[in-house]
Amino acid sequence: MKAFFDNRQRNHQPRHFMANGAIRPNPEQAGRIDRLHAGALEAGCDFEAPIDAGIGPIAAIHSPEYLRFLQTIHARWTQIEGSGDEVIPNIHPANRSDSYPKSAVGQAGYHQADTACPIASGTWEAAYWSAQSAISGADAILAGERSAYVLSRPPGHHAFGDLAGGFCFLNNSAIAAERLRANGLRAAILDVDVHHGNGTQGIFYNRADILTVSIHADPAGFYPFFWGHHHERGAGDGLGYNLNLPLQRGTADDDYLETLHVALNRIKAFGADVVVVALGLDAFIDDPFKGLAITTPGFARIGAAIAGLGLPCLFVQEGGYICDALGANLTSVLGGYRDASG
Amino acid sequence: MKAFFDNRQRNHQPRHFMANGAIRPNPEQAGRIDRLHAGALEAGCDFEAPIDAGIGPIAAIHSPEYLRFLQTIHARWTQIEGSGDEVIPNIHPANRSDSYPKSAVGQAGYHQADTACPIASGTWEAAYWSAQSAISGADAILAGERSAYVLSRPPGHHAFGDLAGGFCFLNNSAIAAERLRANGLRAAILDVDVHHGNGTQGIFYNRADILTVSIHADPAGFYPFFWGHHHERGAGDGLGYNLNLPLQRGTADDDYLETLHVALNRIKAFGADVVVVALGLDAFIDDPFKGLAITTPGFARIGAAIAGLGLPCLFVQEGGYICDALGANLTSVLGGYRDASG
Repeated sequence: MKAFFDNRQRNHQPRHFMANGAIRPNPEQAGRIDRLHAGALEAGCDFEAPIDAGIGPIAAIHSPEYLRFLQTIHARWTQIEGSGDEVIPNIHPANRSDSYPKSAVGQAGYHQADTACPIASGTWEAAYWSAQSAISGADAILAGERSAYVLSRPPGHHAFGDLAGGFCFLNNSAIAAERLRANGLRAAILDVDVHHGNGTQGIFYNRADILTVSIHADPAGFYPFFWGHHHERGAGDGLGYNLNLPLQRGTADDDYLETLHVALNRIKAFGADVVVVALGLDAFIDDPFKGLAITTPGFARIGAAIAGLGLPCLFVQEGGYICDALGANLTSVLGGYRDASG
Repeated sequence: MKAFFDNRQRNHQPRHFMANGAIRPNPEQAGRIDRLHAGALEAGCDFEAPIDAGIGPIAAIHSPEYLRFLQTIHARWTQIEGSGDEVIPNIHPANRSDSYPKSAVGQAGYHQADTACPIASGTWEAAYWSAQSAISGADAILAGERSAYVLSRPPGHHAFGDLAGGFCFLNNSAIAAERLRANGLRAAILDVDVHHGNGTQGIFYNRADILTVSIHADPAGFYPFFWGHHHERGAGDGLGYNLNLPLQRGTADDDYLETLHVALNRIKAFGADVVVVALGLDAFIDDPFKGLAITTPGFARIGAAIAGLGLPCLFVQEGGYICDALGANLTSVLGGYRDASG
């Protein structure tokens, strides 16, 4: 399987975020890359660097203000007297229809949903190349590959069109899906990260041309809290084209697989030509976030079930945090997919 | 002049907040009380404790969910594994029309606009009695006093109907104004705090029966960033009943007084029976926030100009942070008012 990664994706090195009123070390570390890279190699992936497709495919998903913000905010932030070394928001608009704020602090609150997406000097470059890896992955599918893996880190599925959040800046899965759609394929996104893919949902919420399906721990008590409920089904033209399948905390392999089949049936009914898998590995039983309880063999079953769609498949890395089995879980899901694809 | 304060207002002792990506000591300290109390005594205030008017007048402004949140969140928060000792939000909804979140972290993001309103064990009691002081102040006016001063701390004008922010939890000025209106007076709120009174504006934004006017440092580059622009004039029935008069950073006495006369003329045109002054003292030239450049004698001119309205006047304390002249500035504004009221 072809795979894509660029070393500049290491340049985002977030240090801390605030959670539950306490400052903690940020778990979205560049060290994830090494484990994921090893796990992908073990599954037979053949890595190449992405081609630079420019800002166009990214701007098809993200607003001009937001892209300007991501590129310039750190330099502006460090000019504030007494500022910290990372851009972390401290005030948020009560709604997003207000006047666009002018100051760095106002823009941080406008474009960053939470304290888990600190922006430092290397963030833009890392996010840019993470997105380029996803674009090259989509292009590989368009060129005829049946599957490809994108080591997209920083991840993307919590990023909306104009809003970072949850370790995410550019929505790699959305960018890839839109790239596929723009080239004539009917694309569905299947998000198996333990956290709801709120950014992806938000981006396509009013559209019927790209289906979004997410399986995740119930947001009633789990990040991202405000999105991911079953009743969020899309709006306008998009009504019925967003499917959320929240699961109880601690759900394990068998029950997960049952829900996955509901998701896969929806994708079949949609008539997808291609599926983009927003591949979080943090549903793992020993992931630091402890939302669900998938085992390493469980990930192989997930990969095999996805292969059952019989569709070209682009795996785009989302979450999954440092733990002993992180690489093995990636090997498992990609191996399960490969073996079942025969 | 009658004045109101309850010692339980000291029980809110916020420790820190995040600003510009750095954790700082919280400037809204209980020590403000001693300076303001001394300044009010110097101006001839005669303090009494408020009567407990119950939750009714507070619930006339704030939503049931929000009041439940303020009363219960700290106990719930401390049960989260690894939580900090103060409730500080770490994720915010992108808009406020989403499903009401169930978890403590979700509710914190829903009900706290920023990191400057940490909630600890004594916060509710302090905010409750700060509001009761404002209610007793309103009742003094209703009983025939020409003026009264409320040492309302914690302050209130950044609190919306369901949203804390900027050191504020219950909107004392709004609660007092609504109390006056409900008892037959036509009330206007004049906010002279250096920060825009965004919560007060939000509460009455769709209403024509209470006029809101705010003079403040331009939010383009100053807290609260998302609100306080001149073009925000009210909506629906309230269109034209909100007036924002933002000033350039560093504006001093003479230019301020000119703008104050615009505000006072609007209040006259409204036909107010009573004016609630949201009395921040942080427009002071040496206030730690350094937004405007009012001098201590300048505050006397502000008090005298307000007296020129010839209306009953309820002064409700808002911001103004610890600096040598904090008490003297309060003495100055109340003394200027008294002397000009003759």
